Amino acid sequence: MDYNKLALEMHEKNKGKLGVFSKVEVKNREDLSTAYTPGVAEPCRRIRDNKADVYRYTAKGNLVAVVTDGTAVLGLGDIGPEAAMPVMEGKAVLFKEFAGVDAFPICLDTKDTEEIIKAVKYIAPTFGGINLEDISAPRCFEIERRLKEELDIPVFHDDQHGTAIVVSAGLINALKLVGKKMEEAKVVINGAGSAGISICKLLLALGVYDVVLVDIKGALVPGQEWMNDAQKVMAEITNKEKQSGKLAEIMKGKDVFIGVSAPNIVTAEMVSTMAKDSIIFAMANPTPEIMPDEAKRGGVRVMATGRSDFPNQINNVLVFPGIFRGALDAKATDITEEMKIAAVKAIASIVTEEELTEEYIIPGAFDKRVSVAVAEAVAKTAKELGITKE
Amino acid sequence: MDYNKLALEMHEKNKGKLGVFSKVEVKNREDLSTAYTPGVAEPCRRIRDNKADVYRYTAKGNLVAVVTDGTAVLGLGDIGPEAAMPVMEGKAVLFKEFAGVDAFPICLDTKDTEEIIKAVKYIAPTFGGINLEDISAPRCFEIERRLKEELDIPVFHDDQHGTAIVVSAGLINALKLVGKKMEEAKVVINGAGSAGISICKLLLALGVYDVVLVDIKGALVPGQEWMNDAQKVMAEITNKEKQSGKLAEIMKGKDVFIGVSAPNIVTAEMVSTMAKDSIIFAMANPTPEIMPDEAKRGGVRVMATGRSDFPNQINNVLVFPGIFRGALDAKATDITEEMKIAAVKAIASIVTEEELTEEYIIPGAFDKRVSVAVAEAVAKTAKELGITKE
Repeated sequence: MDYNKLALEMHEKNKGKLGVFSKVEVKNREDLSTAYTPGVAEPCRRIRDNKADVYRYTAKGNLVAVVTDGTAVLGLGDIGPEAAMPVMEGKAVLFKEFAGVDAFPICLDTKDTEEIIKAVKYIAPTFGGINLEDISAPRCFEIERRLKEELDIPVFHDDQHGTAIVVSAGLINALKLVGKKMEEAKVVINGAGSAGISICKLLLALGVYDVVLVDIKGALVPGQEWMNDAQKVMAEITNKEKQSGKLAEIMKGKDVFIGVSAPNIVTAEMVSTMAKDSIIFAMANPTPEIMPDEAKRGGVRVMATGRSDFPNQINNVLVFPGIFRGALDAKATDITEEMKIAAVKAIASIVTEEELTEEYIIPGAFDKRVSVAVAEAVAKTAKELGITKE
Repeated sequence: MDYNKLALEMHEKNKGKLGVFSKVEVKNREDLSTAYTPGVAEPCRRIRDNKADVYRYTAKGNLVAVVTDGTAVLGLGDIGPEAAMPVMEGKAVLFKEFAGVDAFPICLDTKDTEEIIKAVKYIAPTFGGINLEDISAPRCFEIERRLKEELDIPVFHDDQHGTAIVVSAGLINALKLVGKKMEEAKVVINGAGSAGISICKLLLALGVYDVVLVDIKGALVPGQEWMNDAQKVMAEITNKEKQSGKLAEIMKGKDVFIGVSAPNIVTAEMVSTMAKDSIIFAMANPTPEIMPDEAKRGGVRVMATGRSDFPNQINNVLVFPGIFRGALDAKATDITEEMKIAAVKAIASIVTEEELTEEYIIPGAFDKRVSVAVAEAVAKTAKELGITKE
């Protein structure tokens, strides 16, 4: 299937993918006087007198901004805010289709960390939540940290946490299948950018003890000069055995390989050095770190990729619609670690013990139960934490 | 009719008035691969390589931001960005219903001129046009001027120019009806804020010679200490007879009164001092400067208000949908004086000479011919001026 050609045709025919619609009719004077002046003044006055009423009388409570600066779009890199627009519209379409969230692309014409933070804060009154998207590391860390601190609506960098959540859900089930425990599994994560670091942090929170992050220059271990600040922090809290060296070396004896890196960098040979019943999540897109048949030759037991044409697709669409649906429904002021963990468990639990096989560790992208389960778990957790506006 | 109550119910029931929809279906893997990864990468690459393709493959070309800082909302004043949201959603609804424009509210959490300018420039890649709304004077002048200069998409402050255009269209027809010429008519405009000044400028461009702007402190005439910078400029180019004094004094002998000021400040007595066949546009909302029956007692011949329950409603909805429809259709880089004048004439010409009466000088708000005629005239003028992106 030539998706490039199909995509060009679809995007040109429809002039993009996203539109705005009116929830009310304006067909006569009375409609106009109710939806607009003079009637509209009354909801305005209510909100002026009690700001929380903005959730009652406006669309804010269901609006999410999909914010990018166009610096890390898909595998294309820094292509600018205009060229990022098709991805942001696509993301908004998925928000709507999978969870009824009204999301809207905001493609920013600045790459400056402080200016991005300011711009998002300025536009925040319109929105019930902020989804950060395809902003390159390390700026994305500071931008998310500051916005979470300074805004009273949920802020979520999907490239980091969406990926981390769905990987974690898949790993819980894969380990269950092969009869290994989270606490005992030896894990290597290849790719120490925003996604790799976020996956690592969430796995640590879920009880993983032995995890090594590997970058193109080798394993993260204290003392390596080439590491950036975020990597230095990770080097301190991972790699208990202080392993150094390249990926091939680090993979030996590991139970789990998680790749968020580059195509075709893992061989069957390398897989064969892993522990028995090995698990591989090869998520480079569109070509994974190792293709499933090659990994099989190396003896892998559970294989997942980012692709829809192989079993066990690790797809963020299982996460972000439900996460925001739940956060918006609860009028949560944040998306916390506890809420992410609730989402992980909700996704994992969709696959029952009876259904669990090597080819079915994670629900399919179109499994409608997922966003509902995630939303419920996330909203419940927010309420338990007492971080809602109600 | 209790529009306040109806409005509260409508806004609460629907959670505001605006939603986002997907123009494409995402029901299976193939859809997902076309609307999102991997297919979406191809339109991204095309736009990266040729920025103009953003109009071809994305929604940008039909998206307008309705931008406010919430400082001059309806007659309510500075009520803040959250409380402005119902008005901005309403505006977006009208854009959609009257001209198929996908408009989206952007309520800004800053009142600083430079920060507003920056915020709008940062978000501009998403949008094909910027509609500024309910931003208080004099900041609105600088914000609009700078954005027009610094952005390559149309920027339009509706409170100024929308009002000016529809008033001008009505005045052309009213003068025709009473057999007076634009060049000879003596005009007083009460209210020397952004709307009054914009009306005055457009009337001058249309050939009016004798016009006096009046503020709460009196007529604008050189040497008055209380005038702001914008008013000082206007004092130099209006008021040929250098009249000074309060409104009652200035109104004597005038052919036309245009009010964008406050309720009930004009009496039948004052109207009776105007020239024969006087014309009154009393647009304070919801209560006009003088009610129609009171103006009749003073001998007015043509009476217009901002209200839908009297004849001759002066309503911006006759302007902004068509203006943006035309500018977007032509991919215009600006909305110029020539385009505004084309809009004025398009609106005025809807009412034919045979149809023209004291009670019908301007088309009704729901006359579907208006936005079509305005859009065509505006697009044609943009092309003639050579200010389109094609």
